[in-house]
Amino acid sequence: MSTAFTSDITGAVVDSLEGTADPRLREVLGALVRHLHDFVRETEPTMAEWESAIAFLTATGQTCTDTRQEFILLSDVLGVSMLVETLNADRAGTGATESTVLGPFHLTESPVRELGADIDLVGSGEPCVVSGRVRSADGTPVPGAVLDVWQASAEGYYDVQQPGVQPPGNGRGLFTADAEGRFWFRTCVPSPYPIPTDGPVGDLLRATGRHPYRPAHIHFIVSAEGHAPVTTHIFVAGSDHLDSDAVFAVKKSLVQDFDETDDPSLAREFGVPNPFRQARFDLVLNPERS
Amino acid sequence: MSTAFTSDITGAVVDSLEGTADPRLREVLGALVRHLHDFVRETEPTMAEWESAIAFLTATGQTCTDTRQEFILLSDVLGVSMLVETLNADRAGTGATESTVLGPFHLTESPVRELGADIDLVGSGEPCVVSGRVRSADGTPVPGAVLDVWQASAEGYYDVQQPGVQPPGNGRGLFTADAEGRFWFRTCVPSPYPIPTDGPVGDLLRATGRHPYRPAHIHFIVSAEGHAPVTTHIFVAGSDHLDSDAVFAVKKSLVQDFDETDDPSLAREFGVPNPFRQARFDLVLNPERS
Repeated sequence: MSTAFTSDITGAVVDSLEGTADPRLREVLGALVRHLHDFVRETEPTMAEWESAIAFLTATGQTCTDTRQEFILLSDVLGVSMLVETLNADRAGTGATESTVLGPFHLTESPVRELGADIDLVGSGEPCVVSGRVRSADGTPVPGAVLDVWQASAEGYYDVQQPGVQPPGNGRGLFTADAEGRFWFRTCVPSPYPIPTDGPVGDLLRATGRHPYRPAHIHFIVSAEGHAPVTTHIFVAGSDHLDSDAVFAVKKSLVQDFDETDDPSLAREFGVPNPFRQARFDLVLNPERS
Repeated sequence: MSTAFTSDITGAVVDSLEGTADPRLREVLGALVRHLHDFVRETEPTMAEWESAIAFLTATGQTCTDTRQEFILLSDVLGVSMLVETLNADRAGTGATESTVLGPFHLTESPVRELGADIDLVGSGEPCVVSGRVRSADGTPVPGAVLDVWQASAEGYYDVQQPGVQPPGNGRGLFTADAEGRFWFRTCVPSPYPIPTDGPVGDLLRATGRHPYRPAHIHFIVSAEGHAPVTTHIFVAGSDHLDSDAVFAVKKSLVQDFDETDDPSLAREFGVPNPFRQARFDLVLNPERS
């Protein structure tokens, strides 16, 4: 049902944005108003439903702290983060490693570490070596590429979720690829874990009958001069929940084997007990568009 | 630009809602996901823009307190509150007094007052008598109708905005119409006032070159057994900003004269100094649908 007033109000709000100094802000806000009003007109919320929505958004904002970002989590479980990330990656062109979501746990700076360092400071999980090469789309290595790496512990928690249990920086490292673009570091094999469910986003998942689990993964942001950065994960092949990630972030090309390796001399070289798990993959960047 | 992944993700998120126990919640969330993704696909936000949006929503939630509701204010300045309110009123049928927004200041219970009482506890403004009758759509009076009334002071602030300056309950009253549906109370003539601009919504108004003012008005929620309640304002004819209300809440039928009245005996009857301002209007409710 729609009266003259309810069809005019959208135009009135869009018109009120005419004085916006930044043309891009005006464009985005105008589109927001149109789509938001379309949603309201389609669903015709009762006043009680509107009040529930206000209360939900308020609680989501108030759940955020220095170490927790519930609005990013909401964006994640609604597939918005993944859509934004992918549209941006598409704009950067094909050829690079596919992107996926940043996630809500990239809140602290990763500590600078030497190649080969162990980011598992508590030694809780199955030892693992991650290695590969950062390449440009044409195959040439990218020396000095920077890899920002973070992952949850073998128990499924990030350092910021367990202050006092995990030392700050556990599971995190900022690595610089060598002169041939190579990188390698030690860690534990990550585990699937639930996103935090003790806030409004948890209530939403329960109400929709959705599980909160993410398949096992390691986060990467790879950047290098003259190249477009890539924000991605590497997922552990065979992990649970690869087909039902709570945040819709799995892309097939990002799933990698973490093979059991029995090679005493390689184990000695990397400084891990034999046998160990090993993941080897290249990370590919596109040259920056001029 | 749209790849297979970015078109599939919307379907994947909508499908993930299949287990929602409440069919109405499933319908609303499905529509939310579709419209939100359409907005993202149309505007293709950069990651920095997405981060700004997350930061804005977070700040909006964190600005809310027991006496301030910044998300309602955001809903108001985007015209969403007014759209929801009007769609609900349309559903209740025509004939009743038109509705308008609740606004963010209906946070405390209005004190019960006798008909004729003065809700201006500080005596700051121009004395005024508000009176009329609550009628059903067919013209019959509605005895015992309840009128929840609230307004800002002559300086343009609600009691909850000025604890320590205004006594709690200033500008508020809960009245019961008499056996003929009549109501009358004293107050001061309200003034136009700016909505709060020291939070994220104020930043939004400044960025869009919009003023924050609302034309002078008194809020009413009128309810009675067997009738659909009406949430509305009465606006003061001739007030500034009637054509550019910051929250898009003005409807022509809600603008009423607040006439200067020179009538010593009427002034004595109402207990106000002569001359005084007077607003007289009926409030009309629709019978509840069975």
